[in-house]
Formats: sequence, structure tokens, C-alpha cells
Amino acid sequence: MQNSNFNLPIKPERIQADIDAISRFTDPGIPYTRRAFSPQYLESRAWLYKQFEDAGLSVRVDAAGNLIGRRGEEGYPVLMMGSHTDTVQGGGRFDGILGVMAALEVARALNESSIELKHPLEIVDFVCEEPTIVNLSPLGSRIMAGDVTINEVSSAVTPFGQSLSEAIIDLGGNPSQLETAVRQPGSIAGYLELHIEQAPVLERGNLSVGVVTAIAAPCRAKVSIRGSADHAGATMMTDRKDALAAAAELVLLVEKVATSPLMSPEGVGTVGWLENLPNMANVIPGEVNLTVEIRSIEAAPLVQAMHEIDQELAEIAQRRGLDASIEWQHIEEPVTLPLQMQEAVSQACESLGLPVMKMPSRASHDAARLAPVAPAGMVFIRCKEGRSHASEEWASIGDIEDGAKVLARSLLNLDGTAI
Amino acid sequence: MQNSNFNLPIKPERIQADIDAISRFTDPGIPYTRRAFSPQYLESRAWLYKQFEDAGLSVRVDAAGNLIGRRGEEGYPVLMMGSHTDTVQGGGRFDGILGVMAALEVARALNESSIELKHPLEIVDFVCEEPTIVNLSPLGSRIMAGDVTINEVSSAVTPFGQSLSEAIIDLGGNPSQLETAVRQPGSIAGYLELHIEQAPVLERGNLSVGVVTAIAAPCRAKVSIRGSADHAGATMMTDRKDALAAAAELVLLVEKVATSPLMSPEGVGTVGWLENLPNMANVIPGEVNLTVEIRSIEAAPLVQAMHEIDQELAEIAQRRGLDASIEWQHIEEPVTLPLQMQEAVSQACESLGLPVMKMPSRASHDAARLAPVAPAGMVFIRCKEGRSHASEEWASIGDIEDGAKVLARSLLNLDGTAI
Repeated sequence: MQNSNFNLPIKPERIQADIDAISRFTDPGIPYTRRAFSPQYLESRAWLYKQFEDAGLSVRVDAAGNLIGRRGEEGYPVLMMGSHTDTVQGGGRFDGILGVMAALEVARALNESSIELKHPLEIVDFVCEEPTIVNLSPLGSRIMAGDVTINEVSSAVTPFGQSLSEAIIDLGGNPSQLETAVRQPGSIAGYLELHIEQAPVLERGNLSVGVVTAIAAPCRAKVSIRGSADHAGATMMTDRKDALAAAAELVLLVEKVATSPLMSPEGVGTVGWLENLPNMANVIPGEVNLTVEIRSIEAAPLVQAMHEIDQELAEIAQRRGLDASIEWQHIEEPVTLPLQMQEAVSQACESLGLPVMKMPSRASHDAARLAPVAPAGMVFIRCKEGRSHASEEWASIGDIEDGAKVLARSLLNLDGTAI
Repeated sequence: MQNSNFNLPIKPERIQADIDAISRFTDPGIPYTRRAFSPQYLESRAWLYKQFEDAGLSVRVDAAGNLIGRRGEEGYPVLMMGSHTDTVQGGGRFDGILGVMAALEVARALNESSIELKHPLEIVDFVCEEPTIVNLSPLGSRIMAGDVTINEVSSAVTPFGQSLSEAIIDLGGNPSQLETAVRQPGSIAGYLELHIEQAPVLERGNLSVGVVTAIAAPCRAKVSIRGSADHAGATMMTDRKDALAAAAELVLLVEKVATSPLMSPEGVGTVGWLENLPNMANVIPGEVNLTVEIRSIEAAPLVQAMHEIDQELAEIAQRRGLDASIEWQHIEEPVTLPLQMQEAVSQACESLGLPVMKMPSRASHDAARLAPVAPAGMVFIRCKEGRSHASEEWASIGDIEDGAKVLARSLLNLDGTAI
């Protein structure tokens, strides 16, 4: 392993400057909001393209709209690093963004050390990782893994008044040639992603860095409850078909299932989105639509939890005389990260004198979607109070430095050992 | 009682035609929606002004924006009839509208019978009866009763990007002279309002018309629950501060209080409006705002129910580690309608050969707000399945005829007996 004792000159202040710079591409009313395909996202992509070029990368946008910077010659399967730069509504400055900026810093450090890797290196900003923009996310990594059809892309629309195809074209992609974005198993020697933990496990353990072992599967359902939108004063309690009251039972049921022995302690369940109609103080809610999301790092409890939620919703609806439907639109399998990838990251921690903290990820990441075509490894860093998907999301520059160094060293380990 | 045995030539098909005509002034996407101060409302007011003129009324808009058509000479306190023509979002064609159109038909029938009443007659389309446009509704009747200050008007804004003052001016009102719209006790001999029941009591009793005895008081609170908007995957169940789960408990609590012996069978409780933030499938709800509305025709249960809701919300918030606040913004006293007004309507039913069905109104009406300055009476008519505040809202032309005839006869009774 030619590079195993060499420390790359990672400069965390450059990573921090890049994170600060891209955070300014935000919906001004709701910092830090940069939804995929929004005007702010398009502007930030142009800026990021320039940063990739300035780091000496050969830059392109693939057919899916993923931004890819490449370094090195053909000949071996690629080593890949990356994450995403889109955010949730009112999201943070680190989720996804850190992984792209840290990878970029590794490329700069390789340049400054005049290191040529054996494998070509690709740094990827995956398009549209966060959900609810289109019902296909994480979009870019799923397309790269061959998991999205051209028909699914051509029938989707964005909230910004465009078809998804038009939105991808505006990013420089080419949805009519979607197959050119798909990678074959074997063509990627390894994929590495640095990410904030988004939970307080590292913080509580007083650790800066963790080695991810498995990624939980999110299963997401759309629920629709239809009652009767009657006058809130005139309609007696016994005559009501109140869709919100039924929805309230479901919200508490999801919480109960997720905290039951079946799913605890790692499993979670959330109703994050809820639409109440007609949503007026003096009208009984006649229709409620909502999402149910459950996650586990084990497959069997997920199946059982989905079944319980289906059964209980039917019972609630029948008891209240309402119509209810549930559609599980998004069912993922939990992913165990390959042992050789866990090992590359663990060895990187050891060689940097950091404790090896192995831990699952309850949040999903591009790494999980890319897993069918690329051995994936992940490095977690501590984030303040475990807060994420919120403007308070925060990681310290010291932890960013540790994480980026582990990322760089993991890459060198893989370049020496993989294929 | 000069007119007691005379039947006015009420033509229900003219009332139906007016109801159909004004129903076309609707938000085209959500029939039948004509929110107060919306473009559709302004257009419908111009049309209604013309209908009042065509009925020989002398028409004006008072300082509050109430449209008033007058008939007859000065000298005695006025007899007043009316209701409102604004709707809730996705509302119906009859709620409020019927009361204005039936009053207009009574004026036409008086003209055609060449009857001059002893009292001057005023027909009023009260501005902005339905809630949530501004937090001051029922606006027109409250201003007329002296229950709204000029400061409250000048600090309110409409959802249509205007101040309330500007919106009232656009209707032809004059908010800087608001006091000129206020009536003094004694200046109104009686106020009569015909309205659909908005509940299925008359339908179940196979009756076309009811005599209202009391109007329930709506008490409305704004609740705000603040938790923490964290990642729905990464945040363990034990670390969550889920504002929607707390809100779900409150929704079910309101239902439980309203169905408890304290409030049943007449009391009702509703969470009609709910705002979930940031409202994304993969973010734990960090903030929920909602309205709680409870109504009773008795004052004591309302006070007790408000107290229970306050206490339980505090308990929910403390147990879950959330912040919660509740503000009762709108507390009304139930109104018992004066016996002489109930009697005028009951006698009208009897003289028309209709059963006298005395019943409370759980819905609130302009009549309740006007009660401090005007003896108020109400006539209910049956509506289909008790549905209201919905596009399915429906009253038959036969029931409209019965209701309008009772309204006309009640007016003649009052003109003979009142003052």
C-alpha cells in the first residue's frame, strides 16, 4: 500500500469556506433551503461546476443530471466519492453538502501532493437526494444504479412547474439518454461518502468519527382518509365523519408501533407530511392526506410494522365510518455495507489514531441506493445535538477535519487494495 | 294586526334564480367559493346592489361595508332582515345567501302587494360573516353592534394582500367613519334571519321549517406547539420532540371533551385548521399550529371545557418535552333569542299551517352578533343530509318557499306588534 503512511494536506478551512459559500444559494425566506431543481439549486450547480474545474477535475453532467468531476486515467474501475447538495425545506448546511465538499478537498490535496491514484477518481454531486420533490428520490444515485426507468422520469413533474425531464435538461442532463448514466456492477471499485450523523450517538460517546456498518431502509406510504366536510358548529358529534380525528389516531399508532418491542430501539416511525382539507376553523376536516415513514436496519420488523399499520388504519376507518387507503409507494431493503469497505474506513481511523466506532445509519443516503452497483463505505461525523434537516444543523471544523482525513485515507486504502 | 291574514305573493323560483345567479361568482377551481373581499365577492356585490335597486330599495353601503337596501319612511325603529353572501372555502350556495335572497323576495312581494309597513324595512347583506378571512368575523354584524373597534379594523389584513381598511373601502365602505355603522339599542325593532339548518334535525323530523330558540356560542382558540424539526430517519424515537404527535393527542382530546357528559348532546368540539411545519415526509414535525373550536348553547360547560383543554394541553406538552401555548381569541356567550321574536316566528308557522318546531342553533349567525342591539329571531329550513360548508349543501325549492313565507309572515307580525 504505497500511500498508507502518507497524510494528505487536508485543509478543513477550505471545506468550511465551500460550505459557507454554497449556503448562500438559499431561498432567502427559509434558510437554508435549496430544493433540487429550484432556481437556487441551478445557480449553486453553476458555482459548484466552477469549483470542480478549479480543483483540476474534468467536469461533466451525466444524463441524469449528476455533476461529476473526474481525475486520472482510464484502465481501472473508478473510485468514487460524493453525496448531494440539495436540501429539504428549511434544511441545513451540512447534510449531503459536507460529503461533496470534503471529496473536493481530497482531490485538491491529491493535486497538491502530486499523487496519481491507480484508479480513476470521480467526485459526484448526486441530483435530488432529498424526498418529496419527485417521488423517485434519491434520484441521481438510483438512476446510476439502474433503478429508475425512463418512463418514470418522463411522467414526473417538479413543484417548480416543470416536467422532471425539462428540469434535468436545465441542469445539463439528457433524460432521453438516461441509460448512459447507468453504471454496471464492477465498473466502480468503491464508493465513499462522508456525512454528518444526524443523530446524537457520536456526540454522546464524545467521538468525532464513526464507521457505518448498515443503512436502514425507509419505507414510505401515502395515506388518504376521506370523511365529510360539514359545518363544525351545526353537526352533532355523533353525526361526524372527521378525517382529522382519524388521522390523529393514525399518527399516534405509527408512534406506538415504532416504539414497540418489534422495532425498538433502532426502528423509527414518522408522520412528517400532513394535508388537512378544507382546513378552516369552522369546517370539520373532510379529507386528510399524509405520509407514513418507517425505518429499520432489519427487514422483518419493517414488513410486520407495515402490516400492523395497514390493519389498524382499516379498523380506524371502519369504526368511524370513513374511507381510508394506504399505498406503500417506496419500500426499500436495509443495506449492510460490504466488510471490505467497513475495513478500509476502520483502518483509516486506526492509522489516524481515532477510535473505531462502528454504527448503523438510520438515515438513508446515496450510498444505500448505489450499493447494487458499487461497494459502498460511509464515514459519519458528529453533529451538534444530533440536529439535522433544520437550520441549526452544525458540525465543528475539527470534526470536519477528522472526517475528511478519514475519507482521504480510506480512499488511499482502497486504491492500494481494491481490484 | 292589519296584515295577519294576508299572504304575500312569495315566488320561490325568483329566490332560486337569485341563488343560482350569485353562485356563478365563484373561484372557478373550488365551487362554491366566494370569500369575503375576494375578487368574486366584489363582483357579486355589484350584481347584488343592482338586484336591491331593481326591487325598489334605496341602496347604500354603510361604513363597515354592509350592503343595505331600505324601504319605507322614517319615524319608527327599523325592522331588519338579512344574512350574508360570503362563503367558506369550498362552501355552498345556501349558507347565508338564502337569508339575503329571501329577504329581497319579501321586499318584492311587499311592492307587488302595495303594502307599506309601519316600520321602515332594511335588508342587509352583512360583510364577512365567515371566519378566518380576518380574525374579527362575523365582521359586519359585530361592527353594527358596536363590538369592533376602529383600531382592530385598521390593524387587520386580508389574505388578498390588502389591509382590511382598503378592502372595506373597495366595497364602498368608510372605515375611518366606522362609528356611523353602529346601531343603538332601540333603533332596530326586530331582526329576522332565514337560514338553512346545517344539521339533520329537521330532515329527521320530516319538517320543512324550525323556530330558533337559542344560538350556541363558538369559542375559538389558536394553539401553537413547538418541538424540534429533526431528521425522521436518524433521530431515535426516544430523542424526538414531535409536534404533530402532540397535536394528534390534542385533536383526540377535543373530540373526547365534546362527547363527554359535560357537553353532550348539544355541544361540539372541532379542530378544523391545522398547519404542520416543515411538512416534509422525512422531517419530524417541529411546529404545529391549529385551531380549537367548541360550541354549546349553555355557558357553564364551555367554561369548563376550555379549562380542561388548557390543562390537558399543558400536560401533553410537559410529558413530551415540548412548548405549547393556547390563546382563546374568540369567546362568545350563547344567545337566547327573545321570547317575543320566537313567538312572532311561531305564530307565522301556525298561520301557515306548519308545525312549530322549536330548536337551538349550534351554528352561529349574524343574528347572534346583532342580538345586543336588536331583538333577533331566526327561521331555519331543512337542508339535505344536514350538509353545509360544502359544495353538496342543498335546500329544496319547496322548503325555501315555506321558509320565505314564514319570514314574510313573521315580518308582518312584528310590524303589527312591535313598538
